[in-house]
Amino acid sequence: MSAIIESVPNFSEGRRQDVIDAILAAYNSVDGARVIDHSSDADHNRSVVTLVGEPAAVSEALFRGIARAAELIDMNQQQGGHPRIGATDVVPLVPIRDITMAECVELARQLAQRVSAELNIPTYLYYKAATRPDREVLANIRKGEYEGLKAALAAGDEDRRPDFGPAELGSAGATVIGARPPLIAYNIYLTTDDVSVAKKIAKAIRHSSGGMRYLQAMGLLVEGRAQVSMNFLDYTRTPLFRVTELIRREASRYGVGIQSAELIGLIPEQALLDAAQWYLQLDNLSPESILEWHLH
Amino acid sequence: MSAIIESVPNFSEGRRQDVIDAILAAYNSVDGARVIDHSSDADHNRSVVTLVGEPAAVSEALFRGIARAAELIDMNQQQGGHPRIGATDVVPLVPIRDITMAECVELARQLAQRVSAELNIPTYLYYKAATRPDREVLANIRKGEYEGLKAALAAGDEDRRPDFGPAELGSAGATVIGARPPLIAYNIYLTTDDVSVAKKIAKAIRHSSGGMRYLQAMGLLVEGRAQVSMNFLDYTRTPLFRVTELIRREASRYGVGIQSAELIGLIPEQALLDAAQWYLQLDNLSPESILEWHLH
Repeated sequence: MSAIIESVPNFSEGRRQDVIDAILAAYNSVDGARVIDHSSDADHNRSVVTLVGEPAAVSEALFRGIARAAELIDMNQQQGGHPRIGATDVVPLVPIRDITMAECVELARQLAQRVSAELNIPTYLYYKAATRPDREVLANIRKGEYEGLKAALAAGDEDRRPDFGPAELGSAGATVIGARPPLIAYNIYLTTDDVSVAKKIAKAIRHSSGGMRYLQAMGLLVEGRAQVSMNFLDYTRTPLFRVTELIRREASRYGVGIQSAELIGLIPEQALLDAAQWYLQLDNLSPESILEWHLH
Repeated sequence: MSAIIESVPNFSEGRRQDVIDAILAAYNSVDGARVIDHSSDADHNRSVVTLVGEPAAVSEALFRGIARAAELIDMNQQQGGHPRIGATDVVPLVPIRDITMAECVELARQLAQRVSAELNIPTYLYYKAATRPDREVLANIRKGEYEGLKAALAAGDEDRRPDFGPAELGSAGATVIGARPPLIAYNIYLTTDDVSVAKKIAKAIRHSSGGMRYLQAMGLLVEGRAQVSMNFLDYTRTPLFRVTELIRREASRYGVGIQSAELIGLIPEQALLDAAQWYLQLDNLSPESILEWHLH
């Protein structure tokens, strides 16, 4: 089996289709890496790409995409609803198979260094790759957006100095590069149209109000049905099955059940295999027990 | 994604290591097919091979293994504890990925025809590939074993005539070839040492005594703990999750729970994904939602 990583680069163009296509083509120009999903939002004026493949190939594809975006996007002109500091705004590297988080952190550092050295773009390391605790959080790095960061650096603010590259912003802005676990967007529909139940459950289970550590949640009314909408920030430590059963228990306290669940976007297979192992109580399940494991 | 099948050929040698090695080498001599498991039993005087790969490659590997076994095993001398009619006794073809059961049946027919034509070995088609209802069951074809079948054919018994090849047995005997779903061996340990509970549950859930259609089960005492030992003959129609929950309910009626579960041998990944989908209530889960799906 060969190592696989995912990356979800965000770039600051969601309107000019020719620019979007040119940047996507750069991301898709390396053997061993593939764009498997992308979406653009005109209001946000931003695009999100999902790239998967071998670590070295994905890293090369990311470099090419960042270079192309720097040529085609002028941050002095760019406007949009989504916070941003650069033409390529943020680039998380995500371990998927046969690669550790530490290896992804190292890959992120190397990529940031190369982007700064070869493209003269300031880079900031974030989350698992952060070099300072305050830079673990993306919002801290992006404070003031392109304009605010540019001014702060021009004023000599040492605190905002990038990890690599010049301490000033050009037309490509700055790029935030880091490593994080896969993110899973998973929603549970309740057997009620009373959104207050979904809101109470969301509050009970999410990290911000005392719940599970790697979980964000909110209660919504979706097509006339109460929904608990969730982001799993680290499914290996806050797993889907445990949260599902916690929701089931909380819901029953209001006389409500779980009607169905849905995924938004992609899920690493391991998150589903973990659920199967837990529910079936297969304590000693090993990868070698799975027939397809022998085919990779 | 390319089609993948599994085959689990059984050959009638479990003692002479040089013969076992030579036959395994034949099974492993084709690009695109791989022996991923094998075991030999001296008492049974029989070996079981697990072969996985592309359909055409697996079919070629099976032919080579059957040819080698015919050279090296003399059924007139062979003795052992396991019922058998041929040097290569039984060869099931199993659809794993992107191939239908009907396609595996066709592959089984072609292989049987080739074995009979090129090696002059009588072949019988069984289970999903059977040409007659009574040949769906392996035991019917193997009745009387090598010696009994040889005598019946010599006596001109029309009923025992093979599907292909000569109506007489040489030193390689006959080979039974067919198609079946993947078989899953799955055991559940109960929180009791009272084997009578496991026996009662096994009786309640298995097909032979009125339970689930594609399930065999028995109650055993294993290392001081009651175990429900099961074979799933078609996990797509009698799934692991449903049987697990049925056992949980039956066990609770005796004041007992499920302590853990285990797999013996291999499981197709889909059986675990089915369990995750059912427990997490992901009604509309599609293969495209799984990140790794895009890598094949």
